[in-house]
Amino acid sequence: MERLAIGIDIGGQSSKCGVVDERGNILSQRVVTSLIDNTKDYIELLTVTVRELIRDTAGIGTVAGIGIGAPNANRLDGTIRYAPNLTWARDAEGRPCVIPFAELLEAATGLQVRITNDANAAARGEHTYGVARGIDDFIMITLGTGVGSGIITHGRLLYGHDGFAGELGHVCVFQGGRQCNCGLKGCLETYASAMGVARTARELLQNDKRESLLRKLDPGKISSKDIYDAAVQGDTLAKEIFAFTGRILGRALGDFVKFSSPQAIVLFGGLTKSREFFHDEMVKAMNDNLMTVWKNKIQILYSSLKESDAAILGASSMVW
Amino acid sequence: MERLAIGIDIGGQSSKCGVVDERGNILSQRVVTSLIDNTKDYIELLTVTVRELIRDTAGIGTVAGIGIGAPNANRLDGTIRYAPNLTWARDAEGRPCVIPFAELLEAATGLQVRITNDANAAARGEHTYGVARGIDDFIMITLGTGVGSGIITHGRLLYGHDGFAGELGHVCVFQGGRQCNCGLKGCLETYASAMGVARTARELLQNDKRESLLRKLDPGKISSKDIYDAAVQGDTLAKEIFAFTGRILGRALGDFVKFSSPQAIVLFGGLTKSREFFHDEMVKAMNDNLMTVWKNKIQILYSSLKESDAAILGASSMVW
Repeated sequence: MERLAIGIDIGGQSSKCGVVDERGNILSQRVVTSLIDNTKDYIELLTVTVRELIRDTAGIGTVAGIGIGAPNANRLDGTIRYAPNLTWARDAEGRPCVIPFAELLEAATGLQVRITNDANAAARGEHTYGVARGIDDFIMITLGTGVGSGIITHGRLLYGHDGFAGELGHVCVFQGGRQCNCGLKGCLETYASAMGVARTARELLQNDKRESLLRKLDPGKISSKDIYDAAVQGDTLAKEIFAFTGRILGRALGDFVKFSSPQAIVLFGGLTKSREFFHDEMVKAMNDNLMTVWKNKIQILYSSLKESDAAILGASSMVW
Repeated sequence: MERLAIGIDIGGQSSKCGVVDERGNILSQRVVTSLIDNTKDYIELLTVTVRELIRDTAGIGTVAGIGIGAPNANRLDGTIRYAPNLTWARDAEGRPCVIPFAELLEAATGLQVRITNDANAAARGEHTYGVARGIDDFIMITLGTGVGSGIITHGRLLYGHDGFAGELGHVCVFQGGRQCNCGLKGCLETYASAMGVARTARELLQNDKRESLLRKLDPGKISSKDIYDAAVQGDTLAKEIFAFTGRILGRALGDFVKFSSPQAIVLFGGLTKSREFFHDEMVKAMNDNLMTVWKNKIQILYSSLKESDAAILGASSMVW
């Protein structure tokens, strides 16, 4: 009988659950909704799903535990803290609150539960099974709706004294810049995320008078996908939006290198699908912001794992 | 017989050498010049000094090895690389070059030699014997002629893949800002160091028309000490120079917290003598640049060790 682990990737919309063997094969997978309005029902849904996954793989192996990647999750105390995008993680007044998640799911399933934030789980996934195998010092940047990060140094995830290390999406890239959901201004996330790219589009459409396919769209509803589609058709303004994004991201990456001196930076998430339009500007801006010792020496890698797989695999790897 | 270690703090002007016991007592200490124009003679001088220190403590213990803190030193390969301020570390044309320092000193003394950069050595000193005892996640910032840093995470120094992690003095705090010796612009070091404070003074004296004691001095020769002396006498402009420095430093510290989530930041070096004039602004700017999870929670500590002692102690602790 093989040793198996369950990996769960908790997102705001859905939760992806998989059974994984020690070589990183996902043997069975289920997707359930995350849009549930109380913690008890959500735990029950996950518990049922975990039982189904165990049944799916009953002949193959035994499940040693559950690993979870979730927004605002803290490995050190097993909690999910004030996650604005999780509908089931709110108090009676509907405000995000602290949920002792690992404890609750352990009680419900009888299995050991480990939890970490989603970007850390993705970093573990890449380190164990993906493009960062064999790289013991790298920074994973997730370019999704927001910007997350997981930092691997000396082969281990960096947690810091309280489990919250690696909030690079909230490093200030423009003093007094765009308002961020976190309360600060000028955060990297307000520029180099799907949301940020859409904001750049709205700004540029207002301030730049050039023609653009994007002018046909409702500015309030422009998505990073719309901008990508326009860029593919050769739209100059759409291309400039990604180039601007690349310059800001690259400059920030240069500063991150000065912190942990990684061998590589691994990029992951929906926005990387548009990399053909920001990669070159990003790499140039990064190298322009590096001293000789690092200039042109830091590898930029793109995740080789399917998006949901990286988080499931990374989460499950916490069990071993 | 006790186990002893020799710690050497190599600076541009002088080299401080001490014999240290395992409890962190410096039993004997010598200071020799660093102003020597070739590597061979400098190694010979250190070798003679090491022999004297061994003789000084002959009855007390045996020396187990030598630990060194030096600018541009790399722990991973034992080299000192392109150190602009070390006169003895240059090639035949007088240009800074790569010196296999640990190897050379091992051959000359017959003792095991470990080497790391000076800010890392100071961080080790604080962690083992100073104000950061028992704190396993902290960032040490050295505010001297320049700005250096040593980052302790999970109880260990962060080296990165190549030994150069922790160059926080060169994080960009003003895009397109002041020219730095490293080749980049807007580095923290160009603002929050003794040099940087003097540059701020020159700028402010030019752009701000208020009266100041500093106007009596030759602007090209104003030192951070002059500004401190003026501030002590209540000079408004001198106080504003430190307040400005505090704001820039504090904002940068906030961004550093987002990286490694340290329990504390430890400040060290000559500029901390002026802390009464920048501390409050620095702390406020740091907290203004932190999310709720960290706001008002990160300790700011000042080194409790004598400046030369921290580096000697930290360097010697590499031997254990």
